[in-house]
Amino acid sequence: MEQKHANIAAVTAANLTAFCIATMQKSGLSDEDARLTAEVLVTTDTLGTFTHGTRQLRGLLKNVRDGRLSATAHEEIAAEGPAWAIVDAHYAMPPAVSYRSMELAMQKARACGIGYVGVRHSSHYGAAGFYANLAARNDMFGLSMCNVDPCMTVPGSKGRVLGTNPIAYAAPAGAERSVYLDIATSAVAATKIYAAKSLGTPIPDNWLVDEDGLPTSDYSDFPEKAVQLPMAGHKGYGLAVMVEILTAVLTGAAVMSEVNSWVIDSPEPTNEGHAFIAIDVGQIMPLGEFKGRMDGMIREIKSAPLAKGADRIYLPGEIELERRDSALAQGIDLPPDVLASLRGLAEDVGIDPAQFNLDLGI
Amino acid sequence: MEQKHANIAAVTAANLTAFCIATMQKSGLSDEDARLTAEVLVTTDTLGTFTHGTRQLRGLLKNVRDGRLSATAHEEIAAEGPAWAIVDAHYAMPPAVSYRSMELAMQKARACGIGYVGVRHSSHYGAAGFYANLAARNDMFGLSMCNVDPCMTVPGSKGRVLGTNPIAYAAPAGAERSVYLDIATSAVAATKIYAAKSLGTPIPDNWLVDEDGLPTSDYSDFPEKAVQLPMAGHKGYGLAVMVEILTAVLTGAAVMSEVNSWVIDSPEPTNEGHAFIAIDVGQIMPLGEFKGRMDGMIREIKSAPLAKGADRIYLPGEIELERRDSALAQGIDLPPDVLASLRGLAEDVGIDPAQFNLDLGI
Repeated sequence: MEQKHANIAAVTAANLTAFCIATMQKSGLSDEDARLTAEVLVTTDTLGTFTHGTRQLRGLLKNVRDGRLSATAHEEIAAEGPAWAIVDAHYAMPPAVSYRSMELAMQKARACGIGYVGVRHSSHYGAAGFYANLAARNDMFGLSMCNVDPCMTVPGSKGRVLGTNPIAYAAPAGAERSVYLDIATSAVAATKIYAAKSLGTPIPDNWLVDEDGLPTSDYSDFPEKAVQLPMAGHKGYGLAVMVEILTAVLTGAAVMSEVNSWVIDSPEPTNEGHAFIAIDVGQIMPLGEFKGRMDGMIREIKSAPLAKGADRIYLPGEIELERRDSALAQGIDLPPDVLASLRGLAEDVGIDPAQFNLDLGI
Repeated sequence: MEQKHANIAAVTAANLTAFCIATMQKSGLSDEDARLTAEVLVTTDTLGTFTHGTRQLRGLLKNVRDGRLSATAHEEIAAEGPAWAIVDAHYAMPPAVSYRSMELAMQKARACGIGYVGVRHSSHYGAAGFYANLAARNDMFGLSMCNVDPCMTVPGSKGRVLGTNPIAYAAPAGAERSVYLDIATSAVAATKIYAAKSLGTPIPDNWLVDEDGLPTSDYSDFPEKAVQLPMAGHKGYGLAVMVEILTAVLTGAAVMSEVNSWVIDSPEPTNEGHAFIAIDVGQIMPLGEFKGRMDGMIREIKSAPLAKGADRIYLPGEIELERRDSALAQGIDLPPDVLASLRGLAEDVGIDPAQFNLDLGI
């Protein structure tokens, strides 16, 4: 963990999971949907991606109360072929739908070598990386993408045009940790801009454009007038468009401005789309050989000469997977905003966290 | 075209193609390999991606003479399943092998909805975008990737660690042009750094690191000591690793430092790997509906409010596809370095370009 939060006892993943499950069961979700959603969100917290972990559960259950999500709906396969399926989520709890949709992609991959599953009529699915890692945990290569409501501009434009459409992948290794990446296609996550703004630290001029669409390092107007830029200019723009195609154009989900934000007060469903691709690597190459070759690649990267001042080289996802080991051994050190959100959730739903030996710092 | 080159008549795609085919036939290649390779390289020139077009043919045929590529070999399917195949290229001409490998991926996609084809024992395949566009021309979504010899550093390191591993995708549209992106995972193409160096124009400090691995805007030591950085830091690094996994770890091709550069004087084969993924979108959603939804997305992007000073918004690949229309109508305005390479090729092989009404500015 990068920093300790004063006076807060670390919580155990097991207690946090039990609490999350209870809040969902009390909100009318099935045991399975509650269990899978809790696994997605708590795992994300253990990886240190607190912006997309249990902090999101309060909002998701508010969406349920507002009728934007359904506690009792269950997704259906709307169409399928040997190596693909389109899932209509029917606004069931998105992390549970997404968990089962990646499992369906893996089932297709087991049958054919590779599988694609697209999802429509869904909403915020948490961290893209969870589903990619789910494939890697099952000895498959996994790819996970999602479109979101427009919050990023594109070259030549101003204002919000495309979502920060995330892409995540993961691949299993042998003796080494698996490799995974989970990125937004924006230059940086919005949380980094908020952090710089609250600390008063400077930012470069390729994170934001001003209201004229010109690059700016002035975050005072963010997010009211200043808008995020794609990563690496036209490259991130092009990748965000690819995500829109695979998650929304091809699935029947809402495209671009049709997507409603899941965090605003609105009765409208979001209709986000997701895409999951799994490759059954053990069918293509003996699994042990694949993992050995992954280990070889990983070790070559780790043993590359160090830059001046650097003490080690991290593989994609390695920092997060080390955080997870530490979180499972010593507890998750939840940041204040997550604790506040969980306290609000406890109050919304009427469940006492102490019942789960959970000290949320009340 | 951005600039006209003095005293050089534009060449027609047909004449350039006929000349390229003749040089390959005279070098012992089959008619089909010559024809497919010429189509890949000339198409790339028409798109304005001159660094990866017919300029490369001289080097590829030198590789044939040096025994690093074979004029007469033909690739074989080493292993396959319903939706995947691994192709052993046997060092046949890489663009021809790659052309047929994307066709094989499309054949798998026709059978199953999605198809993955990995290629090993190959070499420089030209522009990644050609093969993605080949899928789009056949009403499929296409993805094309390649690993290359290390020429990029990674966060925390210095020196050459990973290749600038390109990623390209394309998707068909209806009344609008198809969308495609073809990018290296480095911050910029090396050619941009060479151009800045020769013009003396400044570059930002996120393109290169110095010999200590520290960010620098000083290109005087490039490429001897300064090394390219991935695009968007850890994001481009992570994507380059994904390309290495799908093109090399999973195919049996050379990984990272095992890859030999195709442009050096060496008897060693390069053993690059490629990956092609095709999705038969018309199987997943009625093709007309998919294309209509693509058009809707494209039009929404094009009609977004313009940034101050911008006169239009381009979709990924739109600039290149407009160049192609112009090149097919008015001829390809080849830059001096391409003309010089083609003159060298004519001399190497002993073919008079005038025979094909080709004015290479001799």
